[in-house]
Amino acid sequence: MKAARIIKTKEPLEIKDVGVPKPKNDQVLVRVESAGVCHSDLHLWEGGYAGPQGVFMKVEDRGVKFPLTPGHEIAGTIEEMGESVTGFSKGEKVLVYPWIGEGTCPACRVGEENVCDAPRSLGIYQDGGYSEMVLVPSHKYLVKLQGLDPNSAASLACSGLTAYTAVKKAGAQPGDTLVIVGAGGLGLMAVQIAKSITNARIAIVDIDDKKLAEAKRLGAHEVINSGASDSVKGVKDITNNFGAEAVIDFVNNAKTAPNSLNMLRKRGRLVMVGLFGGSLELNLPLIPLRAFTLTGAYTGKFADLVELVALARMDKIQSVVSRKFTLDQANSALEELKSGKIIGRAVINP
Amino acid sequence: MKAARIIKTKEPLEIKDVGVPKPKNDQVLVRVESAGVCHSDLHLWEGGYAGPQGVFMKVEDRGVKFPLTPGHEIAGTIEEMGESVTGFSKGEKVLVYPWIGEGTCPACRVGEENVCDAPRSLGIYQDGGYSEMVLVPSHKYLVKLQGLDPNSAASLACSGLTAYTAVKKAGAQPGDTLVIVGAGGLGLMAVQIAKSITNARIAIVDIDDKKLAEAKRLGAHEVINSGASDSVKGVKDITNNFGAEAVIDFVNNAKTAPNSLNMLRKRGRLVMVGLFGGSLELNLPLIPLRAFTLTGAYTGKFADLVELVALARMDKIQSVVSRKFTLDQANSALEELKSGKIIGRAVINP
Amino acid sequence: MKAARIIKTKEPLEIKDVGVPKPKNDQVLVRVESAGVCHSDLHLWEGGYAGPQGVFMKVEDRGVKFPLTPGHEIAGTIEEMGESVTGFSKGEKVLVYPWIGEGTCPACRVGEENVCDAPRSLGIYQDGGYSEMVLVPSHKYLVKLQGLDPNSAASLACSGLTAYTAVKKAGAQPGDTLVIVGAGGLGLMAVQIAKSITNARIAIVDIDDKKLAEAKRLGAHEVINSGASDSVKGVKDITNNFGAEAVIDFVNNAKTAPNSLNMLRKRGRLVMVGLFGGSLELNLPLIPLRAFTLTGAYTGKFADLVELVALARMDKIQSVVSRKFTLDQANSALEELKSGKIIGRAVINP
Amino acid sequence: MKAARIIKTKEPLEIKDVGVPKPKNDQVLVRVESAGVCHSDLHLWEGGYAGPQGVFMKVEDRGVKFPLTPGHEIAGTIEEMGESVTGFSKGEKVLVYPWIGEGTCPACRVGEENVCDAPRSLGIYQDGGYSEMVLVPSHKYLVKLQGLDPNSAASLACSGLTAYTAVKKAGAQPGDTLVIVGAGGLGLMAVQIAKSITNARIAIVDIDDKKLAEAKRLGAHEVINSGASDSVKGVKDITNNFGAEAVIDFVNNAKTAPNSLNMLRKRGRLVMVGLFGGSLELNLPLIPLRAFTLTGAYTGKFADLVELVALARMDKIQSVVSRKFTLDQANSALEELKSGKIIGRAVINP
Repeated sequence: MKAARIIKTKEPLEIKDVGVPKPKNDQVLVRVESAGVCHSDLHLWEGGYAGPQGVFMKVEDRGVKFPLTPGHEIAGTIEEMGESVTGFSKGEKVLVYPWIGEGTCPACRVGEENVCDAPRSLGIYQDGGYSEMVLVPSHKYLVKLQGLDPNSAASLACSGLTAYTAVKKAGAQPGDTLVIVGAGGLGLMAVQIAKSITNARIAIVDIDDKKLAEAKRLGAHEVINSGASDSVKGVKDITNNFGAEAVIDFVNNAKTAPNSLNMLRKRGRLVMVGLFGGSLELNLPLIPLRAFTLTGAYTGKFADLVELVALARMDKIQSVVSRKFTLDQANSALEELKSGKIIGRAVINP
Repeated sequence: MKAARIIKTKEPLEIKDVGVPKPKNDQVLVRVESAGVCHSDLHLWEGGYAGPQGVFMKVEDRGVKFPLTPGHEIAGTIEEMGESVTGFSKGEKVLVYPWIGEGTCPACRVGEENVCDAPRSLGIYQDGGYSEMVLVPSHKYLVKLQGLDPNSAASLACSGLTAYTAVKKAGAQPGDTLVIVGAGGLGLMAVQIAKSITNARIAIVDIDDKKLAEAKRLGAHEVINSGASDSVKGVKDITNNFGAEAVIDFVNNAKTAPNSLNMLRKRGRLVMVGLFGGSLELNLPLIPLRAFTLTGAYTGKFADLVELVALARMDKIQSVVSRKFTLDQANSALEELKSGKIIGRAVINP
Repeated sequence: MKAARIIKTKEPLEIKDVGVPKPKNDQVLVRVESAGVCHSDLHLWEGGYAGPQGVFMKVEDRGVKFPLTPGHEIAGTIEEMGESVTGFSKGEKVLVYPWIGEGTCPACRVGEENVCDAPRSLGIYQDGGYSEMVLVPSHKYLVKLQGLDPNSAASLACSGLTAYTAVKKAGAQPGDTLVIVGAGGLGLMAVQIAKSITNARIAIVDIDDKKLAEAKRLGAHEVINSGASDSVKGVKDITNNFGAEAVIDFVNNAKTAPNSLNMLRKRGRLVMVGLFGGSLELNLPLIPLRAFTLTGAYTGKFADLVELVALARMDKIQSVVSRKFTLDQANSALEELKSGKIIGRAVINP
Repeated sequence: MKAARIIKTKEPLEIKDVGVPKPKNDQVLVRVESAGVCHSDLHLWEGGYAGPQGVFMKVEDRGVKFPLTPGHEIAGTIEEMGESVTGFSKGEKVLVYPWIGEGTCPACRVGEENVCDAPRSLGIYQDGGYSEMVLVPSHKYLVKLQGLDPNSAASLACSGLTAYTAVKKAGAQPGDTLVIVGAGGLGLMAVQIAKSITNARIAIVDIDDKKLAEAKRLGAHEVINSGASDSVKGVKDITNNFGAEAVIDFVNNAKTAPNSLNMLRKRGRLVMVGLFGGSLELNLPLIPLRAFTLTGAYTGKFADLVELVALARMDKIQSVVSRKFTLDQANSALEELKSGKIIGRAVINP
């Protein structure tokens, strides 16, 4: 079978013919129909990303080993199953949960394999979806598509799941104000999810009026252009000067974070998602005095992916695929993503 | 009745004869037997405290009005009850929950009056326990002492409750490592509480070997002298290099906070309690990448005080009173506290 | 002021001129605009209700004292406020939370005054809303209407709140099947609430096709006529033979309860609401073997009423008032309710 | 390797020489040091158990297939590991979690494999521990013993875990009264666990004064002989006539269940554990009116076994082994258990 592999960082992926793995026990071999092209694939390709104080954080220092087939957003068809697999059948269409853990750490024990101490994620620590086939370690990591389009579904496993986790962690109750900072792909997904699973008033903050308009169309109740105005004041104005019960910061950099914190009402929760770097000067006594909670969201757990797929089947969320590539075009896909030419989501159809 | 009142900040409290309030509806008049002398009484007396960047935070800007009778740690005897009071009787000994809210804000609605948007706390926003009698707005704020000593019980309402809330928020499970930073009054109380309500391994961090020894005597499993060694390394050493599932920082200043954060295991919770000021340079992507939660604890809710009093009745916690003053000696009590002469807890016995 | 009072059970209510109470402390005097006429008002009037084995359960044995002004579903305007009231102003329109507790029992401590050990509910244990004015013990029991119609809002305090609590206790996740047994007023309210706060598939069970059709119009995904077919089989058929994750039984009698239990999937939750009497032969080993949970819902807590009013303001639920009476017509209102002539909800407009 | 196998129900187990399985992927081969002999092994051997109305419930109707090697309480040493296993090493001593699920059902998704829709439990649905070796499907089901004695540890996986789950589900807070019905092996384990993880007052109910005395020695605060007195009255007497916040019924038969229900305080939780059969006439309106919760506990989840082992390592619980058998004596072990000759716990040491 063909796979697009990173042999060495910063060099073009090679389209290789590799052996087809044979699934044993509860392993499942999935024929890839759609593999999402995600920003973190770029980090793998480049070998790392810019950390605080300009330090380059090498992925190889965090356990990644090359050659590697990237691709963690995978939808496809079951090709073959190990002898212990139950509940699935050949030819069935599935979405793959890629955030696989080693199984016994505190996170794995409560089903949060996405924050495992020693992760085995597909497309990062083991071969992923830029390939004709992918070997999934167990049927436990499969969600049935039941009619969902594989191209639209693929990104649910990463960006969709991250947004879902963030909205859940925000814990907004009916009547609360939930501020979403950043109206990019994640933010717009979060607006739709918040619309579906909370009854909060949703305020979206961004510097781009077009994105804000799209957020409004998708269900945001209030829009605040943080380029044109003071976003903290904007939130205070719509909350009787109290601030918001919850804020999700999908940017989470030195510019947005101080504002996100200052938007909070006493007892407020700030969910930090963005990985764009930077730091925040945190006024220490403020945290106890105002009983704030700051919490990070990083992708999500399998049980949440099942719920998210249920929302997608109920047409509560739209996930738009704007570009499609073949496996041979994997390098072009990454190049275009890197150069900012891809608006929305790109997928590879092997 | 006599009361020691702050008439003007920074001037001696005046021992005044004030009228005895008449309880109506569900109000209760309590004859004070013991009123704890707390550091925050000093802040009231001095009119504020040093905030970030050396700014003096005036309590009058936060809604405090003088003249005021301070004292929020109050144990005493029911003297008289309004006509709607039920479940209590004259002469009964009670501990007073002082963290009273206005009742309808989001915090009050879930019984967290301690973090009310518009607090009415006794001894801060209305007259408190440096007095022969105190008017409690409702029997709902009383906990029966049922044999507990009023002097020992008084501080449960403030420092005890803060430690209890912090330990609960730390959420340590059996087998987890819980680090307690600071072996002062709050920290030692937290060790005892953690010993009673968790089955975590408790590690205590301080720079004073005597305090560390006392923590060990009260139940800490591990002691780390952060003056003599690297406390982060100390925690890593006893956790197989993973870090601790939970850290409570009772100091929470520029010196301890970075270490407290670095002691955390992935998914770790840092409970921030200390109000000593200072700031922390927070590396933003770290929060999502390691799925950390930072949360503030400020005193506690009524339901938790009831639980804490139950623990005290089971002899699970010791609260040692080292000094006793009369009401006429209120100024001396505050002066001695200010000058650091009081080791442990002082109370006023009116 | 005029009030319609039960002087003696089973005798006509008397329209009396009673003194206007003077609010003290945080009490609030509310001018009643709308008082819902509820089935439990009939129980008060008749002095009790039929319990198990045909025993008549006297309300006076449960602490009710006559004469009494009934009426626990109250919306109106603030007429006068005690000196400690904050956050409200004269003339403001409010909904009254009637399920008032004594304040210190385990339920009250966690804000569940509706299941207080020694309840003080308005219109049951103290004078209620069949009156020109009602004295509310504290502003803590008021929710601002902010534009909601008082007639529609009144019943949120009882039937709406019961349905809301039941749906929350059912805990249905996206993709779960939630069965609602009984498409009467409560059941139809529950359908709308479930539609708003869950992403479950909602199945409604009743014997009346008209009610089932109305449930479908309000959002139910599946309808099952339990008169025409086997409702347990109906639920199994739509759940791949597994059963439903959650069932709410608004009838909860000898006829529905066995089916409701048999509809449950392993780990299922049955929320029991109806008070129509009867008993269930419970197969004891079934509860551990299938890890079932059976739980009762009785009205709801104040915090949930605030959330429910938020839903109503977002137009997520409709509460239809079909009949209006004056205070002088209070006896007619009760008579017509008793004889089954009132479809939907009746209110008294004093 | 040798294994004691049930070839046909009701016939003696045969000691067979079977092939040694070869672990693949994350499978682990464990050399059995100790296999607990549990009552449910008798059910397997007898082919079923008496259900309601005298019906014999055949285990083969529930998916069990013979021949089968029973034994679900297994402690031993790692003999060999599949190529994907991490975090363990050959020769390491481990306790095996036997309640394995298929992985994708709602229970498995949240880590509650013990109540899986299609269970694969070791010693029930696949070969277990009455054998020299057992093949464990993944290292995810292993807990390190770290010094615990294998014989004492074995029963933690079944009876210990059931008691732990039940105590957790009881949710008793400091100061609550927790009633434990039945002072047999499970009940005595529950007393110790409740002592360790709650600060409730523990009351034990049994008909045997010797067992009650043992419960008292292990930490129970109150003992009630239900043979000699009215146990409901006994609980009311020690709870100021309110009843207990939580009751765990380890007998859960027609005789105990009505009392257990009547012991509950308003809002009380009844945890039903015993599988001895029988039924309860449940007064339906009582459940909502008193806001009761009835919930079943069946063994427990992996994360709880990890916590329980942590408690055992802290010497908080004692698990006494009274009899030891060799593998060849497996039939004698079962016979003696059946005839009631084994007091405490028996193990097989292959």
